[in-house]
Amino acid sequence: MMFEFEVLKECEKTGARAGVLHTPHGDIKTPVYMPVGTQAAVKALTTQQVEECGAQILLANTYHLYLRPGDELVKEAGGLHQFMHWDKPILTDSGGFQVFSLGELRRLTEKGAHFKSHLDGSAHTLTPEKVMQIEQNLGADIIMAFDECTPYPATYEYTKNSMERTHRWAERCQKAKTSRNQALFGIVQGGMFADLRRESALAINSMDFPGNAIGGLSVGEPKAKMYELLEVVTPLLERNKPRYLMGVGTPDCLLEGIERGVDMFDCVLQTRIARNGTALTSQGKKVVRNAEYARDFSPLDPECDCYACRNFTRAYIRHLLKAGEILGGMLLSLHNIHFTVKLMEGAREAILGGYFPEYKKEKFQKLGY
Amino acid sequence: MMFEFEVLKECEKTGARAGVLHTPHGDIKTPVYMPVGTQAAVKALTTQQVEECGAQILLANTYHLYLRPGDELVKEAGGLHQFMHWDKPILTDSGGFQVFSLGELRRLTEKGAHFKSHLDGSAHTLTPEKVMQIEQNLGADIIMAFDECTPYPATYEYTKNSMERTHRWAERCQKAKTSRNQALFGIVQGGMFADLRRESALAINSMDFPGNAIGGLSVGEPKAKMYELLEVVTPLLERNKPRYLMGVGTPDCLLEGIERGVDMFDCVLQTRIARNGTALTSQGKKVVRNAEYARDFSPLDPECDCYACRNFTRAYIRHLLKAGEILGGMLLSLHNIHFTVKLMEGAREAILGGYFPEYKKEKFQKLGY
Repeated sequence: MMFEFEVLKECEKTGARAGVLHTPHGDIKTPVYMPVGTQAAVKALTTQQVEECGAQILLANTYHLYLRPGDELVKEAGGLHQFMHWDKPILTDSGGFQVFSLGELRRLTEKGAHFKSHLDGSAHTLTPEKVMQIEQNLGADIIMAFDECTPYPATYEYTKNSMERTHRWAERCQKAKTSRNQALFGIVQGGMFADLRRESALAINSMDFPGNAIGGLSVGEPKAKMYELLEVVTPLLERNKPRYLMGVGTPDCLLEGIERGVDMFDCVLQTRIARNGTALTSQGKKVVRNAEYARDFSPLDPECDCYACRNFTRAYIRHLLKAGEILGGMLLSLHNIHFTVKLMEGAREAILGGYFPEYKKEKFQKLGY
Repeated sequence: MMFEFEVLKECEKTGARAGVLHTPHGDIKTPVYMPVGTQAAVKALTTQQVEECGAQILLANTYHLYLRPGDELVKEAGGLHQFMHWDKPILTDSGGFQVFSLGELRRLTEKGAHFKSHLDGSAHTLTPEKVMQIEQNLGADIIMAFDECTPYPATYEYTKNSMERTHRWAERCQKAKTSRNQALFGIVQGGMFADLRRESALAINSMDFPGNAIGGLSVGEPKAKMYELLEVVTPLLERNKPRYLMGVGTPDCLLEGIERGVDMFDCVLQTRIARNGTALTSQGKKVVRNAEYARDFSPLDPECDCYACRNFTRAYIRHLLKAGEILGGMLLSLHNIHFTVKLMEGAREAILGGYFPEYKKEKFQKLGY
């Protein structure tokens, strides 16, 4: 099977597992962090640089690419892989999260989401069928079902209705999808309610998608709540399929997610905080913009061997940031992605080696959580 | 001698010559285009990318680095090479051009230039002695004498007085310089007046600098005027020393300069127009932002083998530019530098091969000049 997922090893004390997901563009070793290339570009990096960071798969955003440059154009270009020159796997989200982030600009019906473009105010409707067509045009290896990312906070009633519609939309996506070289993942919703999360996990799991995602978390709730809900959901999702926690995360959330049986993650934090001058390091976050680094001639992270850490100092990168040089954000983006990829590689080795709980404990101490 | 310049071959029909300039950080094959790293960074590129473009030497700006992060800090970092991680030659200008661009914010005396920082309004004085100290702290291989870049237009009297002061400052720079591993270049001024240019060329040449620069051109005058003045100046500058035309230029000006015996050039145009969405190509300039490239799936320049042209299309780069993705400017900057470096390499080969006039003619036709 083209998208077979093999669980190679499970942690004896936690839900953590190490696996391999086979895709038409190569194997993905899990657990895996996916850098985000919203508009078919990881911000401030070439795909060569992203690859040198060790990234195995990128995420691109259906909503953004549908509006600009348009999925038809991407198809004409030969699909996303060729358009952005990335020949490893790609995952596209469904646009659900972005559309629902539009707030007042969108209206929801059983049919789909009606919204105005954030670019030019033009009117659009995304339905499950339309989203499948768009994602097929984009041509990613893994495509996501169209869902409603339930707002936070939301009432029980709103959340239940929203979740049920997400389930109906998931079925419509399954029916609408015609491509054979793409894996469609379903998305568990259910907001902040454990019983709805359970119901959603069972429903989505029963639809037999080749992979299952968990959406609507990391939307503003306390981290403890997210972990609690993950513990409800992941055991209900089939063991031999990859589990993907959408929009997560920070180093602590990644390790907590792995511990609870999650295999795939994506997050824009790495590149966003980079452009604001912050580095993720083995000793925790460092705001390199700060004056304390003006004469600090050590690398961003002494334990890191990325291009930025091998060749440049905190003092230099701080200078770039203060001087408004794009290169500052480039080097920090590169480092933060590399750092996160290595954190995940370390977790995988730890799972395979049978010492994941110790690995997590040590990382939490060093990272200051 | 550490900075020996060898003329390998001279064109029989023009003043063009091919040479090699030896420096402590390696040889520079001339004629050469120097990308500009104003604030110790070539805008939007890593030094690795700049090196992959074939750049042999970078220019950095003394004025900017003196104000931020400060030349003392750069010295503490081990000098510019180490600070910015570039182990090939570097040239620093003297700050003359930047200070005189400040207009109302600066005042000139025999002693030096008194000005207010464009960053915070703080008061500063740059003298020839101070500039030598700064450039020694920065530690470039080639350093420039402090001059006045005569404004355009200027009266004969103003230009003559300014030029004479530049000569006195050049002597003061020579006396003040104590470093032994740096080559100090003098700068010819004289504005738009052929007799003053002649006088300045003779004066600067007689001071026996290891290299001679021509400043105060490409400041707004017609190109024909620049070429005419170059023809006055270059024959008066010693044959066995490199000649550097400051702040030039566009592909046509580079080839015209080479034809008139210039060996070194620098220009910010390549990276500046890149960030605005324009590519230099073998068929002339292309404004890749334009709608006509929306579905153009050919490379920026079909004759180019840079990273951008090998891997990305005009349509993709246009998408990046329209979407505000930094990567668009990165790829165009990389291409424009690569293009210019290759243009110069081609000129050098043509001189060595005895067909420079034909090379220039062909390039002018293809580039649309």
